[in-house]
Amino acid sequence: MAAPKSLSRTPLSTVTAGTIVSSLLTVQTSGAGFTDLTAEVAKFLREAAAREGAVTLFIRHTSASLTIQENADPSVLKDLTTALNRLAPENAGWVHDTEGPDDMPAHIKTMLTSVSLQIPVLNGEMTLGTWQGIYVAEHRARPHRREIVLQFIGSAAQ
Amino acid sequence: MAAPKSLSRTPLSTVTAGTIVSSLLTVQTSGAGFTDLTAEVAKFLREAAAREGAVTLFIRHTSASLTIQENADPSVLKDLTTALNRLAPENAGWVHDTEGPDDMPAHIKTMLTSVSLQIPVLNGEMTLGTWQGIYVAEHRARPHRREIVLQFIGSAAQ
Amino acid sequence: MAAPKSLSRTPLSTVTAGTIVSSLLTVQTSGAGFTDLTAEVAKFLREAAAREGAVTLFIRHTSASLTIQENADPSVLKDLTTALNRLAPENAGWVHDTEGPDDMPAHIKTMLTSVSLQIPVLNGEMTLGTWQGIYVAEHRARPHRREIVLQFIGSAAQ
Repeated sequence: MAAPKSLSRTPLSTVTAGTIVSSLLTVQTSGAGFTDLTAEVAKFLREAAAREGAVTLFIRHTSASLTIQENADPSVLKDLTTALNRLAPENAGWVHDTEGPDDMPAHIKTMLTSVSLQIPVLNGEMTLGTWQGIYVAEHRARPHRREIVLQFIGSAAQ
Repeated sequence: MAAPKSLSRTPLSTVTAGTIVSSLLTVQTSGAGFTDLTAEVAKFLREAAAREGAVTLFIRHTSASLTIQENADPSVLKDLTTALNRLAPENAGWVHDTEGPDDMPAHIKTMLTSVSLQIPVLNGEMTLGTWQGIYVAEHRARPHRREIVLQFIGSAAQ
Repeated sequence: MAAPKSLSRTPLSTVTAGTIVSSLLTVQTSGAGFTDLTAEVAKFLREAAAREGAVTLFIRHTSASLTIQENADPSVLKDLTTALNRLAPENAGWVHDTEGPDDMPAHIKTMLTSVSLQIPVLNGEMTLGTWQGIYVAEHRARPHRREIVLQFIGSAAQ
């Protein structure tokens, strides 16, 4: 542990929390791997006329999950898949195997990543870093239809 | 990485964010394993007259955590326990061992899962998928008393 | 899985959700390890005159992350670093290695921990447990400048 070496903070921005906007996003995945949702979430915020607040993503599944990761070099996403396969291998003596060898590893991978994400929104835009993309991670081998709830809480332009 | 193969979204639902309702839930665990909190969170939302918004769960501990997982086959939860034991084994040369061999692995398991969860609420009900249950995961060997803050932000019926 | 053995809940506290306060925190890390942000988040809440609601932390990076962990014995944080190094080792055949051997492991460690945290606030204070501290975890070997968005949603004193 270390005390912060150097630390600064911007002045506070304050608005009235007025609006909640919700929508259900359905994504068809193409089997194990990552699908970029960043542009779709940005589009949702534009339609919601979002100004300042936070957007929540919630995935309604236990064998696919959400993560925010590097969006520049696709080999990062390959290595993330490799890492998850090493942490939750198939045929590793799992009791739950009636749905195929990829099913129990998919639940473990979901537990190790995220079912919900919150991203602050300022001036109508997510405060993502330059290299951050929002991904749904499909952990089953075959393509699946996945549902993700999008919800903005905050101030809207109208 | 893949661009979404197919993607659709429902029309926006918009309400006024009016209310914050908070409550502290105390759970007695029965040692390492998972305890289902889904019905208790649903009950909290009914008492809060919640309509549309999001419910947050926050666990006030560092050796127990929260996760959303498969609620149908209990062997999934057994395998999740096995997986966590493999990822954070006892007697693996940890420096911090004054509180027993299960203590440091419990901190690691907490880091790999979640201390906070957000679940959108629509029409008074959590938008959980069919197979999703909300669990507190006890990572210590012995039973513990665990505190979880429940908080709804959104619109309420009154 | 187990049904709750014993479970209790406090009466509901209800307030009006009126205010969103946001600020950007910049932290200079001193290389791989944990930096305590708890006091700085508490200071932000005091300046925001926060009463009841939730504070969100969001880190704008993919090779550093957030976690809530034990704040008493510094050896816990050492062991957490060891655990992450074992789960995401360097020189393990990663494809993405142009930014150095610590880069891809840093992305994996970020995926296994958190980019966003939500902590309920009651009576102006975070509902952290006695042993909980909020940390930014630097996963790169060298010091970095890291940006974290702080956002309070809830009721404020004025």
